[in-house]
Amino acid sequence: MSLLVQKFGGSSLADLQKLQAVADRVVATRARGHDLVVVVSAMGRTTDELLGMARDVVGAPSRRELDMLLSVGERISMALLSMAIHARGHEAISLTGSQCGIITTHSHSNARIMDVRPFRVQDELEKGHIVIVAGYQGTSYRREVTTLGRGGSDTTAVALAAALGAEACEIYSDVDGVYDADPRVVLDAKQLDTLTHDEMMEMARSGAKVLNEQAVEFARRAGIALYARSTHIAESRGTVVRPDGFDERAADAERGRPIVAVSNINAGLWIQATTSTDAVCRAIEEFDTAVADCSETAVAAFLPTQDLHDVTALTAALRALGPDVEVSSRGLVSAVGQGAGSRLRWLRAANQALRVADLATERTFVMLNRLSWVVAEADVVAAANVIHDTLVKS
Amino acid sequence: MSLLVQKFGGSSLADLQKLQAVADRVVATRARGHDLVVVVSAMGRTTDELLGMARDVVGAPSRRELDMLLSVGERISMALLSMAIHARGHEAISLTGSQCGIITTHSHSNARIMDVRPFRVQDELEKGHIVIVAGYQGTSYRREVTTLGRGGSDTTAVALAAALGAEACEIYSDVDGVYDADPRVVLDAKQLDTLTHDEMMEMARSGAKVLNEQAVEFARRAGIALYARSTHIAESRGTVVRPDGFDERAADAERGRPIVAVSNINAGLWIQATTSTDAVCRAIEEFDTAVADCSETAVAAFLPTQDLHDVTALTAALRALGPDVEVSSRGLVSAVGQGAGSRLRWLRAANQALRVADLATERTFVMLNRLSWVVAEADVVAAANVIHDTLVKS
Repeated sequence: MSLLVQKFGGSSLADLQKLQAVADRVVATRARGHDLVVVVSAMGRTTDELLGMARDVVGAPSRRELDMLLSVGERISMALLSMAIHARGHEAISLTGSQCGIITTHSHSNARIMDVRPFRVQDELEKGHIVIVAGYQGTSYRREVTTLGRGGSDTTAVALAAALGAEACEIYSDVDGVYDADPRVVLDAKQLDTLTHDEMMEMARSGAKVLNEQAVEFARRAGIALYARSTHIAESRGTVVRPDGFDERAADAERGRPIVAVSNINAGLWIQATTSTDAVCRAIEEFDTAVADCSETAVAAFLPTQDLHDVTALTAALRALGPDVEVSSRGLVSAVGQGAGSRLRWLRAANQALRVADLATERTFVMLNRLSWVVAEADVVAAANVIHDTLVKS
Repeated sequence: MSLLVQKFGGSSLADLQKLQAVADRVVATRARGHDLVVVVSAMGRTTDELLGMARDVVGAPSRRELDMLLSVGERISMALLSMAIHARGHEAISLTGSQCGIITTHSHSNARIMDVRPFRVQDELEKGHIVIVAGYQGTSYRREVTTLGRGGSDTTAVALAAALGAEACEIYSDVDGVYDADPRVVLDAKQLDTLTHDEMMEMARSGAKVLNEQAVEFARRAGIALYARSTHIAESRGTVVRPDGFDERAADAERGRPIVAVSNINAGLWIQATTSTDAVCRAIEEFDTAVADCSETAVAAFLPTQDLHDVTALTAALRALGPDVEVSSRGLVSAVGQGAGSRLRWLRAANQALRVADLATERTFVMLNRLSWVVAEADVVAAANVIHDTLVKS
């Protein structure tokens, strides 16, 4: 039997009624003859409520104890979902991250998966059980409970799919797939049928929240197709994230239309320096999602606010590195597509359209699969629409 | 440094304010120079709320999944208490039942502790950390999450105290010790300064809820003194449960006053049979708290309702065993004291006082350290008062 891994996010499990609907969907998939591993997030606002309690107790909780606390959220979901599947006459068993063999680094609240040893999952699948797994958590090599950071349940799902050799991994959420721009920002954004892992990773890195970046990276390395689908639509077609060259769109790119989507980051720090460049680069190199150009004579870098623990402290620390270090607030708009950086024609077209719309850009970054513009925070929406009109719709 | 184990129940942790008060008390104990292990229950109504969610999902949840679900309650408490202790400038670390090496039987929802391997706890104590432990839970030899049943956090505390060679184990709750009768039933009940492990076990078995029976049994085997104290009284003297012969009360008993307390069970099944006696005995032998007399020609047994999963089903099953099997509702009143059963004088005095008060008794059971009377449910309160007046107060 073919093995599917399905992941349901917190909004798909917001209350017991929604949890029952997820159970229906799982049982229906089972009835189509699949072996099934189901990864769940914490129900609705559980994580926020637990976090609120922690902050009531102490301003800055220890990350180790926070992991102990937050990891219970997924355990509640998995036990209840397993019970709901029993009630439908199917055999199910819930397993914690640790019981699934999700081995992580020791970095609390932001651990990365190092290894997956899914022996227990395989045993239960062989017995014909539907396996329900607590997402977002693992156990470190020191046997400590760890959590994987934002979007971590996606990563759990893909890592298990890879380790188990699953046919595919389906990520269910409130949205019905990946759009060619954020629909809250670009009103005529359209759902994409398909895109490559590289493109999805660039989108995640540049502001799209629909799939977690590490999850897509795992899927790429394992060559697993990822389906982003809606929980609420019975036959949601959704979007497929596939290895490069899998589909006809590769041909589109050959014909000269490399850009598939626009993404945006509404708030970030924009850092420039001409002296102390080495110190500034070292101070920001830990931020994976930074867009930066570091040379000996100049640094220019954009850091998304959402990835910063303490913006005020970081700003002060950067300014203290030298009198010429400038730190200000900016947004970022990006155009993503396989080979986007290798066609200057599209960069030129976008720059011209932005100029016509009277939208100033602070700087343009050209990457292999992505073009990014640093703009004023107030201009993010307008710039995203202009670039979508110019490079995606046309 | 001497090692203390303290246990705080759910009502002592009913909300964040109470949790902060517990943190103050822990830090104060620490300041007196003790090494400390703190065992916590789930906060307030957490367990009931989780149970309610499970019953909303499915009428009869699987016990394995219920253990997965309910075990999160203590994890929330332990992480928050650890944070609250950090906020007071002390080093603390929370550990799950599994991390503490609490190894149990595989019997979900009612597991018994088989072994304690507290290596991790010892490591953390050696580093000078206050160790916060999730009560009520362990891990089976199959590496499954298990829970210990009602009052299980007491058992965790005593089992750890025994395994670590602690000086004493303090059980904190809303009541300020053990009383010589249930104060809700006998209005002039008095707090006891001290009693023996045997007496406390008999009280727990015959209806007193202040300490868990298995916990007292562990303490007795390890020769550990148990202190039952109030969370709300700063210098709560409480009650000490000690090995036999430890105190002057042993001398009292020698002088002929063996009864220390009265206990009561308000509701139970009263079973009588003269044929099918073997089948009836087999049907009830799994209930540890049964008071029974089984012979080949007659069975008489009292089973507390609170220990029965499904009273209606059990009643039907018993009646089906034979036409003469009688099952009805009764209560039980007991007089507990080291050697209570060996002095007929006290039994006679009690029987006479019950007769004078016009309280009919169905049957009297005489045990080594306890006398028990089966009475009508409506007579439990009156009978408990008569026996308290006659055997304890006088």
